Amino acid sequence: MKVGNQHFRSIWHDAASGAVFIIDQRWLPHRFETVEIDTLDEFATAIREMWVRGAPLIGVTAAWGMAKAVARDPSDTSINSAWEVLHATRPTAINLAWALNRMRDHLIPHPVEERSSLATRLAIEMADEDVEINRQIGENGLQLIREIAFAKPEGSAVNILTHCNAGWLAAVDWGTATSPIYHAHNAGLNVHVWVDETRPRNQGALTAWELGSHGVPHTYVVDSAGGHLMQNGEVDIVIVGTDRTTRCGDVCNKIGTYLKALAAQDNRVPFYVALPSPTIDWKVSEGVKEIPIEQRGGSEVRRQLGRNIDGEISEVAVPPDDSPVGNPAFDVTPARLVTGLITERGVVQPSEAALLEMYSDLA
Amino acid sequence: MKVGNQHFRSIWHDAASGAVFIIDQRWLPHRFETVEIDTLDEFATAIREMWVRGAPLIGVTAAWGMAKAVARDPSDTSINSAWEVLHATRPTAINLAWALNRMRDHLIPHPVEERSSLATRLAIEMADEDVEINRQIGENGLQLIREIAFAKPEGSAVNILTHCNAGWLAAVDWGTATSPIYHAHNAGLNVHVWVDETRPRNQGALTAWELGSHGVPHTYVVDSAGGHLMQNGEVDIVIVGTDRTTRCGDVCNKIGTYLKALAAQDNRVPFYVALPSPTIDWKVSEGVKEIPIEQRGGSEVRRQLGRNIDGEISEVAVPPDDSPVGNPAFDVTPARLVTGLITERGVVQPSEAALLEMYSDLA
Repeated sequence: MKVGNQHFRSIWHDAASGAVFIIDQRWLPHRFETVEIDTLDEFATAIREMWVRGAPLIGVTAAWGMAKAVARDPSDTSINSAWEVLHATRPTAINLAWALNRMRDHLIPHPVEERSSLATRLAIEMADEDVEINRQIGENGLQLIREIAFAKPEGSAVNILTHCNAGWLAAVDWGTATSPIYHAHNAGLNVHVWVDETRPRNQGALTAWELGSHGVPHTYVVDSAGGHLMQNGEVDIVIVGTDRTTRCGDVCNKIGTYLKALAAQDNRVPFYVALPSPTIDWKVSEGVKEIPIEQRGGSEVRRQLGRNIDGEISEVAVPPDDSPVGNPAFDVTPARLVTGLITERGVVQPSEAALLEMYSDLA
Repeated sequence: MKVGNQHFRSIWHDAASGAVFIIDQRWLPHRFETVEIDTLDEFATAIREMWVRGAPLIGVTAAWGMAKAVARDPSDTSINSAWEVLHATRPTAINLAWALNRMRDHLIPHPVEERSSLATRLAIEMADEDVEINRQIGENGLQLIREIAFAKPEGSAVNILTHCNAGWLAAVDWGTATSPIYHAHNAGLNVHVWVDETRPRNQGALTAWELGSHGVPHTYVVDSAGGHLMQNGEVDIVIVGTDRTTRCGDVCNKIGTYLKALAAQDNRVPFYVALPSPTIDWKVSEGVKEIPIEQRGGSEVRRQLGRNIDGEISEVAVPPDDSPVGNPAFDVTPARLVTGLITERGVVQPSEAALLEMYSDLA
């Protein structure tokens, strides 16, 4: 999407030099920096240390990491070792394993001398596929927003609440939850987005930066505000992303999503989850019981990263040093609280039957 | 409660010297500093600049400010002028006017030569009354925690979740929501507290400091974590405070309380609200419709206050400067989501009938 009137993807390949660039998202929203990543170690660091984040972008970054490793050494050993190194970077993202398996399974049957160019072509293809999937998610979600807009008094904005950053920064372009929003804005609909701060990592600041950079009206609020906003009729629809959706439609997403789904149900606000079909985990049925939740380090909660009075990125510690800290990174929203899943094939009920019908070829 | 094995109140009077001391809460949880306040100007500054905070503590501090002014000059003019100066510090705090009126109405009918000792006695009495009310809330809440403890396997902790700081730092001692917790801990029960960070002002850091100083096991978590914890059986009871409760039992409290109440209901976790009866607003029935919610400045959301790497208290800015920010400070939890109200007279159902029965003398 746009940054300063120029179009960017979150990861891109320079065909002439073969270089791969990313936006180093650690400095957003305070500084917009792009960086070339090249070695396996750099790719692993970029994923582990969250220079890049978001399931789809992690998948494509891992694919490029594998392609770069294969360019250096196309052997089976190299491919398997790249798989291990990249897979170990983040435990919850199913996209990571999916992307790495796809690369490995594609390359292994071929002679070593063909693998590098095959790997590059597949990485490009996977990035483009992701963009196309998210474009379709946007088209499908646009219809929902359009219906709400038609039902509202002329001129009044459609108020959309989102949590975390399921934006183009977390994908390659468009984003998942933001794609319907960008499509609606680009189509001339009057949309306004409530952006959850999303503690502890404040990904809402990224969403606010994205939306602001593209010109979409929005308001940044703490995670606790959404219930009050819904109680007062200030939210027309909730759209969030997901890291993993079960075959029964349970949705694993950033910690706090479940609380917004409860508030949406309590106030009859439609609650939608935008997802590309590869994030459906067909092996898992009951999300709360079966999905392990990543417990991240306490320093994310203890320390707040931001811009200090001198304009430098720095941290402040908030709670007492000797207080223990808990940091579950995700939660599971049961399917019963989800109005619908916005996928690249269309909007589907969050149930096993409906998902199996739409994805009979994948399940 | 205890700080470093010594018992403190948030405001106290040295009977021998007549000096009044407070904890300068601006530096908590990073530094524990006590300070003597003596002149009317010092009392006004302490309230205005939030060296002290929390409705009950503000009231008692104002009473002491009046007593100190009367000790210097017991005339009607002095009393009225102290009333004006102290009342202007936080003009919206209802407890402030209540405490100042009570002092003035008590003193004015008496001869000037008796006023100073009367004022001192009343300030002591008002502080002790607050402590006694909160002690009774604690005794009543203790029974609930004891029942949960008895029903759990021996040795396992009772997990209590709380939001914001309804602790002794906001009262004179014990606190409201924390009083049952301190009572349970002092009685030898094994309790563990999930402390919500409570964005945007991070009052959870104060609660964590309080609990840690008194030796109560606790874990600091972001506001979004509570739903996940409840889904996984890690919360046995929620206890929060309130700024205002309606005659029908709707509870207005710090933004985000409503989301925790929804999660508690969804997971059959009992949700209790601890309150002194003066915070029941008998003129209001339906909280969501009738209670106006304060919209505070955006800088609280934009900036995070904490201790920087040099140990200094400083701020960092998190979202983009040009993103608009919303900051509703409270929300309303409908009575249907509240299991019970823990008051100084006992635990009561959140309904008009039950409240009128217990408080027939006040309603």
